[in-house]
Amino acid sequence: MDLTPMMKPMNVAIIGASRSPGKVGNVIMQNYIAAGYEGKLYPVNPNADEILGRKSYRTVLEIKDTIDLAVIAVPAPIVPLVLEQCGKAKVKSVVVVSGGFAEVGEVKLQDRITEIAKKYRIAMVGPNCLGVMDTRAKSDTMFLPMKKISRPKVGSVSFVSQSGAVGSTVLDVIAGEGFGLSKFISYGNAAYVDEVDILEYLMNDDETKVIVLYIEGIKRGKEFVELARKLTKKKPVVVLKAGRTSAGVNAAHSHTASLAGNYAVQEAIFRQFGFAIANDLSELLYYAKIFASEVKPSGNRVAVITNGGGAGVITADEIASSRYLKMADYAEGTKKALKKVMPGLVNIANPLDLAGDADANRYRQALDLIGADRNTDMLVVIILYQTPGADPSVTREMVQKKITLSKPLLVISVGTEYTEKQAKLLEEGGVPVYDSPIAAIDSLEALFEYAEFKSRSSTR
Amino acid sequence: MDLTPMMKPMNVAIIGASRSPGKVGNVIMQNYIAAGYEGKLYPVNPNADEILGRKSYRTVLEIKDTIDLAVIAVPAPIVPLVLEQCGKAKVKSVVVVSGGFAEVGEVKLQDRITEIAKKYRIAMVGPNCLGVMDTRAKSDTMFLPMKKISRPKVGSVSFVSQSGAVGSTVLDVIAGEGFGLSKFISYGNAAYVDEVDILEYLMNDDETKVIVLYIEGIKRGKEFVELARKLTKKKPVVVLKAGRTSAGVNAAHSHTASLAGNYAVQEAIFRQFGFAIANDLSELLYYAKIFASEVKPSGNRVAVITNGGGAGVITADEIASSRYLKMADYAEGTKKALKKVMPGLVNIANPLDLAGDADANRYRQALDLIGADRNTDMLVVIILYQTPGADPSVTREMVQKKITLSKPLLVISVGTEYTEKQAKLLEEGGVPVYDSPIAAIDSLEALFEYAEFKSRSSTR
Repeated sequence: MDLTPMMKPMNVAIIGASRSPGKVGNVIMQNYIAAGYEGKLYPVNPNADEILGRKSYRTVLEIKDTIDLAVIAVPAPIVPLVLEQCGKAKVKSVVVVSGGFAEVGEVKLQDRITEIAKKYRIAMVGPNCLGVMDTRAKSDTMFLPMKKISRPKVGSVSFVSQSGAVGSTVLDVIAGEGFGLSKFISYGNAAYVDEVDILEYLMNDDETKVIVLYIEGIKRGKEFVELARKLTKKKPVVVLKAGRTSAGVNAAHSHTASLAGNYAVQEAIFRQFGFAIANDLSELLYYAKIFASEVKPSGNRVAVITNGGGAGVITADEIASSRYLKMADYAEGTKKALKKVMPGLVNIANPLDLAGDADANRYRQALDLIGADRNTDMLVVIILYQTPGADPSVTREMVQKKITLSKPLLVISVGTEYTEKQAKLLEEGGVPVYDSPIAAIDSLEALFEYAEFKSRSSTR
Repeated sequence: MDLTPMMKPMNVAIIGASRSPGKVGNVIMQNYIAAGYEGKLYPVNPNADEILGRKSYRTVLEIKDTIDLAVIAVPAPIVPLVLEQCGKAKVKSVVVVSGGFAEVGEVKLQDRITEIAKKYRIAMVGPNCLGVMDTRAKSDTMFLPMKKISRPKVGSVSFVSQSGAVGSTVLDVIAGEGFGLSKFISYGNAAYVDEVDILEYLMNDDETKVIVLYIEGIKRGKEFVELARKLTKKKPVVVLKAGRTSAGVNAAHSHTASLAGNYAVQEAIFRQFGFAIANDLSELLYYAKIFASEVKPSGNRVAVITNGGGAGVITADEIASSRYLKMADYAEGTKKALKKVMPGLVNIANPLDLAGDADANRYRQALDLIGADRNTDMLVVIILYQTPGADPSVTREMVQKKITLSKPLLVISVGTEYTEKQAKLLEEGGVPVYDSPIAAIDSLEALFEYAEFKSRSSTR
């Protein structure tokens, strides 16, 4: 199904647009205007001539343009009528944000709108959903006030969420991360367009480099498997499947009436096709971040550079107890070169403990030599900004190195105000920052596993 | 060893106090003044009459008062001389922040100062350490500028760290948490006072309700075990032992020359004596937070209240896959009462999904009924502030409930600006807030395990 008109609409009709602040149809209008959407915006409301300074239309049929996207925000019983009008007006896609369908037992009403969408071949997302966002098109159908959710910047990660609440929460967190968002799709009851349609679209979308997926149930198992086979050969997919235990399955059923299914089977499918499997919202974001940095490791050997010995020890423990990663053993040439430039108190080892007085110069020398080491595939750099030597010039060295280095590179940094400021600068410079060794090493491992999957599947 | 004069000094001599900004002896003086230390402050420097507006002394012997704590910040070779003077002046305790001893091979110099401390029976912490902080006494020997590390507020958690860098990092993070700090002790080379002395002091310290411990090696194994046997019967101890793998052990050895020892043996000891074992800095803080809330669970049955179905499902998955916790099955009376007050769309189940429009009133009703449920031992409340109904009045209901509820209660909340503001208010109100279901459930499990340990050990 072609979702291009929905994601990149030249014009948008908002059916149920409203003049009353706080109403869904008003919030959506406001958000479009505030986001600086550059296409044409058509409010539709039978009882208004003008809404928020724009000419309003009685029905979508009155609009001369062919509409790319109609956002439907009217009470459930009226949805069939306006959807029928959309069909007659040759509207290309609709997002039904209205609730009051299968999720409250109104299965027949939902079947009716699905029939109408099929009859007119309108790509319909929803009902009972937050809808879609495309950061480049500045199109955003979400009916959530800006003050509660920060909007993410433009980027290469696309996020698909069945659940609206999880979707809006993750979206809010992504807004605080350095990597940006390409598209967000919350598809609710999935009456017509479902996860298979959405993933197929994102697979072929050049703006999407990483797909992040939150699901509770899989509707079309066979088609999902067929798509998965192709999908991860093209781009990485991070998946969080809720309903892994029987307690979770029960909860999922009462939430979206999803048949969560047997997780062991689903997990086996995810593994077979190289999905990165997250068990928590935090892992979902950690993995998305490392994939968004778009550098592929050529092996599993990790070098650790640190200005805090203790943090280096914890990180070495994590690497050694991971499934696939191991501590790098620098080449002899690297060791000699390090010995030459490092002060006497720095023991030439992995982790390389640069000591608490390490400054930008010492970090740069270490990054240059270990970055070029042929026995090192990935670099973990710990910067404890609480120490006397670590300051913004260390941040600048890292960002500089990131530009030229062809190996995965991440930073572990933990702290409050001063540290958070530096971490933000690092992320804006494309360097992923983690706040714990476990999160960092788990993410590197996910990156390595996907690289392995890709090289296996390309040689088949 | 009595560390009271060190932690609660009536007066402090700063030996090596300096007028030059940036110098260690200047930073320490500045920090004491900025913190509002109320005891007497005596700068000691052979070449100054006045430092930062205070009369300066040539040697500690010139001071008329008996000194409770002398902070020694002079070059390593001079430390024996000034320590000898401290002995003659009957100084009760010293913190040697100076480096240049065993950590750089100067073992003999270190042995010499240890002999002097023993001869005069001066409680000596260090050398090569950050020293000590007591938030109530407003005494803080750390030589780190305030702008890089936020200082924690007064509280009941005491934190012991061998490593200075890990110590300062964790201290910085604790400052951002709602729970406060009682004491911080970074003991460096442990030439005289070591972890056993410090833990013994904290065991008997009424201001310390929770002990958090970061160690790389254990010096006196037998004494440590003897103390551990008594310690955890009195208060909870969260421990992060770096050097769990051979890679970590090697790294630890090159860091503090610690003999990290066999972790399997150490872990068995920690488990036997009911320590909460953290594997990462983040876990150390998560566990500290739940113990600081000081409520003991009377069983393992967890109720989940949520305004986001998906987050409830993930949390149920975590509880069901934990080792000891399980989902509560509400008593019949609770179910009936919930059915009576909740709107029709709320399915009476655990998790209890209050739906995206849940407001303070709905949260309060759920908290009252489930808080009183006799089949529920602990409450996990998920608040996704991105949803339309969740606002500051929900925060107020939670804080209100925390005051009267005698069961452990925590909140899971994920998001950026708006959410962070509410999370801070919750924590200030004594409600621990976690940013992921995994972190929250792991922490509840640590709390439950400790409660079990205590009831087992009290019936012996």
